[in-house]
Amino acid sequence: AKTHKIAVIAGDGIGKEVMPEGLRVVEAAARRFGISLEFTTFDWAHCDYYVQHGKMMPDDWFEQLKGFEAVFFGAVGWPEKVPDHISLWGSLLKFRRDFDQYVNLRPVRLMPGVPCPLANKKPGDIDFYVVRENTEGEYSSVGGKMFEGTDRELVLQEAVFTRKGVDRILKYAFDLAQSRPKKHLTSATKSNGISISMPYWDERVAEMGKTYPDVKWDKYHIDILTARFVLSPERFDVVVASNLFGDILSDLGPACAGTIGIAPSANLNPDRTLPSLFEPVHGSAPDIFGKNIANPIAMIWSGAMMLDFLGQGDANYRAAHDAIVAAIEKSLVEGPRTPDLGGNGNTTDVGKAIAALI
Amino acid sequence: AKTHKIAVIAGDGIGKEVMPEGLRVVEAAARRFGISLEFTTFDWAHCDYYVQHGKMMPDDWFEQLKGFEAVFFGAVGWPEKVPDHISLWGSLLKFRRDFDQYVNLRPVRLMPGVPCPLANKKPGDIDFYVVRENTEGEYSSVGGKMFEGTDRELVLQEAVFTRKGVDRILKYAFDLAQSRPKKHLTSATKSNGISISMPYWDERVAEMGKTYPDVKWDKYHIDILTARFVLSPERFDVVVASNLFGDILSDLGPACAGTIGIAPSANLNPDRTLPSLFEPVHGSAPDIFGKNIANPIAMIWSGAMMLDFLGQGDANYRAAHDAIVAAIEKSLVEGPRTPDLGGNGNTTDVGKAIAALI
Ligand SMILES: CC(C)[C@H](C(=O)O)[C@@H](O)C(=O)O
Ligand SMILES: CC(C)[C@H](C(=O)O)[C@@H](O)C(=O)O
Repeated sequence: AKTHKIAVIAGDGIGKEVMPEGLRVVEAAARRFGISLEFTTFDWAHCDYYVQHGKMMPDDWFEQLKGFEAVFFGAVGWPEKVPDHISLWGSLLKFRRDFDQYVNLRPVRLMPGVPCPLANKKPGDIDFYVVRENTEGEYSSVGGKMFEGTDRELVLQEAVFTRKGVDRILKYAFDLAQSRPKKHLTSATKSNGISISMPYWDERVAEMGKTYPDVKWDKYHIDILTARFVLSPERFDVVVASNLFGDILSDLGPACAGTIGIAPSANLNPDRTLPSLFEPVHGSAPDIFGKNIANPIAMIWSGAMMLDFLGQGDANYRAAHDAIVAAIEKSLVEGPRTPDLGGNGNTTDVGKAIAALI
Repeated sequence: AKTHKIAVIAGDGIGKEVMPEGLRVVEAAARRFGISLEFTTFDWAHCDYYVQHGKMMPDDWFEQLKGFEAVFFGAVGWPEKVPDHISLWGSLLKFRRDFDQYVNLRPVRLMPGVPCPLANKKPGDIDFYVVRENTEGEYSSVGGKMFEGTDRELVLQEAVFTRKGVDRILKYAFDLAQSRPKKHLTSATKSNGISISMPYWDERVAEMGKTYPDVKWDKYHIDILTARFVLSPERFDVVVASNLFGDILSDLGPACAGTIGIAPSANLNPDRTLPSLFEPVHGSAPDIFGKNIANPIAMIWSGAMMLDFLGQGDANYRAAHDAIVAAIEKSLVEGPRTPDLGGNGNTTDVGKAIAALI
């Protein structure tokens, strides 16, 4: 069997605490399903590294990582040490862009045992994917400041949408919708207010939609779409969105499903020419770091997504993914649970319990 | 007593149905509190006008409106007739910008009698303001398309933040926070991902915060902020945001408080050199137009905000505002209610009932 090479980067804060549990569970699943993994740990792409070296990563980071199939990634950011835009653009956002991980795939699911902030919802009611464009759009580093320090001071920030960038994410999302029973896709837009980029986005959606006659699709402006997430989350199946809108929807969705503490994500390079990256949706949470109370489920679930990706559709890998998700569900019902879910288990307890269930 | 000159523009769709009820209630309150209002109706700034004239408004719209103290505005948009970005940039967004209505003030309040989609929330638990920048930011008409129709096609859209634009909305928001018992302000940002404009926004917030030592303020990235709206809406008091983020938060907030069907808004020119504009947060809803079932409360509540604004702090006008809000609350509890709130009253019934309560 093939050995998959995986780079491990824990990053900052609770990234360091949830990573060991992610590895524990992924290794348990790999053992059970006879999948061969080789992990290599990198001690950079965190804010202490920046404090020492004046940069987030060594100059040859790309060379060091490019041969891996996947990066298993904790979280980055510690604003007291390094401003967020510097730490993030110096690591995570660089990976997404330079490894051309143009799909950010984020499942939103109400799991059993998780208290839901929405009234009268039960597991199964909320179950969809946010497909987020991950390399362009509103996240650009193009722009600047003029008349600095004066009353006339002004800042420009460019959003950049390319035909290639838009079409490939739409294609991924339509393919995903087509593969699901409901075959439904929702596009997030704001073409009534953002009058150049968003009408273009709408145009490309309409164009792509024509080539998927069996997929029903609709579009909502982002403002009302966030309202619908709260008022009728059961109506969504696949939601495709630009970089910023996808960022918002993939925090809001998990919040509607109870907590962003368990939400996983996959930053995919579907062409597999460079590594893909798997990480929790949550951040480094400096405020709770050091207490071993962070919920490791997002990290663990991201590990499950990684195995599925490595398998390229292979049933055995899919089974490993499903076993992890089933173990997560069981642990959410039976405990132990971390304090964010009302339990008094710690990070390690939860990781061990889930590994034991596999 | 002074007579206030008010321009009335119903617009499209349900704008036409809720406007008469808004007027009915505002006139009732004006009578009761001895406030003198003079209404002038304008039959343009709607999509049928565009279909006939190839533009949303006559060329001298500015001249026609500039002498009014306020515009009482329904809703604009009918995508089958005119693309939204054309109808909106040709009317509402023009008003906001050309009348320099730089504050978009939107109360978010859980009202008695409104079913809340969040579990275990009661009236009083959700009660805050979104203060939205209303003239610049992500809503710019600057940008364009290149390599059109080819694989290299790309679209640029500029976000524009000026020192003047940012500082004046922050000042308004800090002043508002200072006037409230909690004295708390939350700034919406995304400085970790949007790396030029949003760090600038943060900088200006920190700077402005220094001059309000008694206001406690914090900031959240927009992604996690939308999650907090769902998970802990009771923690907010005044939320200040850029044009786009404010747009999102002021639909999401009312959704968390039950419905955007009743949410009002005030587009303010605090200098009063040009008209301010009062409108529901909801749109023109072509799908339900013609049935007389639209909920008129957002329009009515916007009318209450208009009276308060006209009074410039005067207690009598404030009382008129409060009487309308109290009548809305009573009607929500006792009915009649429109179908969106589970009732079987129609638009007119609700308007009449509220007017009768005044
Ligand atoms: C109709 C649209 C352009 C408008 C906006 O985005 O500002 C609306 O959503 C609002 O919130 O007033
Ligand atoms: C940390 C931040 C830059 C990042 C993003 O905005 O993409 C995060 O919020 C996410 O969703 O992965």
